Amino acid sequence: MKKLINAVDDVVKEQLEGMEMAHGDMLAVNYEPFFVYRKDAPVSGKVAVISGGGSGHEPMHGGFVGMGMLDAACPGAVFTSPTPDQMYEAAKKVNSGAGVLNLVKNYTGDVLNFETAAELAHGDGIPVQNILIDDDASVKDSLYTAGRRGVGTTVIAEKIVGGAAEDGYDLDKLADLARKVNMYGRSMGIALSGASVPGADKPLFELSDEEFEFGIGIHGEPGRVRQAMKSADEITEMMVAAILDDEAYTRTVREWDREKGEWEEKELTDEPFASGQDVILFVNSMGGTPVSELYAVYRKAAMILKDRGFNVVRNLVGPYITSLEMQGASITIVRADEEILKYWDAPVKTPGLRWGG
Amino acid sequence: MKKLINAVDDVVKEQLEGMEMAHGDMLAVNYEPFFVYRKDAPVSGKVAVISGGGSGHEPMHGGFVGMGMLDAACPGAVFTSPTPDQMYEAAKKVNSGAGVLNLVKNYTGDVLNFETAAELAHGDGIPVQNILIDDDASVKDSLYTAGRRGVGTTVIAEKIVGGAAEDGYDLDKLADLARKVNMYGRSMGIALSGASVPGADKPLFELSDEEFEFGIGIHGEPGRVRQAMKSADEITEMMVAAILDDEAYTRTVREWDREKGEWEEKELTDEPFASGQDVILFVNSMGGTPVSELYAVYRKAAMILKDRGFNVVRNLVGPYITSLEMQGASITIVRADEEILKYWDAPVKTPGLRWGG
Repeated sequence: MKKLINAVDDVVKEQLEGMEMAHGDMLAVNYEPFFVYRKDAPVSGKVAVISGGGSGHEPMHGGFVGMGMLDAACPGAVFTSPTPDQMYEAAKKVNSGAGVLNLVKNYTGDVLNFETAAELAHGDGIPVQNILIDDDASVKDSLYTAGRRGVGTTVIAEKIVGGAAEDGYDLDKLADLARKVNMYGRSMGIALSGASVPGADKPLFELSDEEFEFGIGIHGEPGRVRQAMKSADEITEMMVAAILDDEAYTRTVREWDREKGEWEEKELTDEPFASGQDVILFVNSMGGTPVSELYAVYRKAAMILKDRGFNVVRNLVGPYITSLEMQGASITIVRADEEILKYWDAPVKTPGLRWGG
Repeated sequence: MKKLINAVDDVVKEQLEGMEMAHGDMLAVNYEPFFVYRKDAPVSGKVAVISGGGSGHEPMHGGFVGMGMLDAACPGAVFTSPTPDQMYEAAKKVNSGAGVLNLVKNYTGDVLNFETAAELAHGDGIPVQNILIDDDASVKDSLYTAGRRGVGTTVIAEKIVGGAAEDGYDLDKLADLARKVNMYGRSMGIALSGASVPGADKPLFELSDEEFEFGIGIHGEPGRVRQAMKSADEITEMMVAAILDDEAYTRTVREWDREKGEWEEKELTDEPFASGQDVILFVNSMGGTPVSELYAVYRKAAMILKDRGFNVVRNLVGPYITSLEMQGASITIVRADEEILKYWDAPVKTPGLRWGG
């Protein structure tokens, strides 16, 4: 499959070099091991926020490094978890002494490696916590995941948690906020085409000209169902209904007990959406779907939300958590309260998301 | 071809409705005829900046309406020029009394219709001027154009002219700046795939898995040559060389003589690039190419510019002037001086480009 790349083995390195050359005012890159970090890190007194995951979802995560969002991002190979040494070295680089919050999308490799990195950081005396993002309403258990996948709410969480970190939240308070944003968010994605990883001679999956896949993941993981292609309105109705009608979900997470120096298992149960709530509506391109089509999806989603008694108080429309050149879209809805809106609105200055800064 | 759309005839209207619902804090939409306008227009004492063109290039132009950039944008049907009544009604809506500057990409329909609209506005006593953008170094004369096509420099011009308008430039001074930015800018684009207009059963052109097209337009117009697929570095070298080695170009433009009330033909000759200059480097996705690949292109382009003695002082990387879901990229290089940088850096708050606001 044709791509604007050089040698397959250099894809991640050269993208990082390009990012550093383009955005050297906001971020820098460590090459051995790979991580992107905020230019002015560590920021005195501030809890550092780190995320990471496979490459191929840009601008997430590296494009969200900068003032008001992430302190560091750890890119793995394309669609492959980063390694614990990336996360651990990033933590040491950006920790100001106030500690590190890792925002971890729920993929088995990411979760395990961020846990190892947290243990290493703890061993060095760095206060650390890992918060799981598992917002995909599509499926429970998938190709790379036990439990629900982490998708669009990650972007929203990185913005809000980043804003609160900038405002002086301590590590525990920040972890509470991150957990809340995750529990308040749900996503649903669809694909019209599959993505091809660099060097592959065919896409991860193929769809005919007459079908789409409902409930797709961001690494070509299967969704709920393949169906005959429908209109934007019909597909949007399916996505929004899947989110709003989703029932309470209980997951078991492992969070770090800093006093005991061990992982504590917790059961967390969220609440379904309820009419009358304020929400942030995020309509995302999987990469190959142009923004013009996203507005058709946004239009219908906003109409449905209004009809069902929700208030869309903020929004985001564009390619923010992608799957290479895959054609498709996802919808993320996050319940909003005063704290969430305050930090959504706070200034941010990153390559991928920027306002007020 | 699969798209997230409803009825083909409603594509533009529904995108505009979605934009208005998502970005009602920045812009509003007039539906009969279609134009997007700045929410707070007319802005007292400010020259209004208007652009427009066929839909399918989003975020250009509607996504650039807002503080510090465009006062209005007139979207035609997909890949089709807007009509004079759209431009004329937009001019009346956003004119504060200080007049209207139309930034016109060089496609025959756009040029003729913006001329008619300017004459109508002049008839109403609105001071008006049209400035041509014709920066595509690829070909002279093309499918929809006499002379060079207007492409990536349009985005740069809209930002800089918008910033200067905000700062109080009068119409003549603003026209001088717009003309300068166009004369300072050149672009070159390539495609890996063709785009399909809504309702079409096949792309405007097709490329095999082994070839790319060099010098492509944004409406599927042919480029200079089709070649065997190459690496990102090789393709970037070809694009940058085509821009930097381009010779002086002379075009005949028609600008409005407000005293005589008639069009005045002028010959304008620009200068080739010269080592030592400061430049803005803009690496653009045609829509279907993910931002991750753009950074590989940016990396090589910045290296070549440095080797050849240029200073890349600002940049833009992303999908800003697209061709629906076409896979491909373009490079735009604009010579920068103090005036240009001042207004590049000025605050902007639009759906598609935002900083400091």
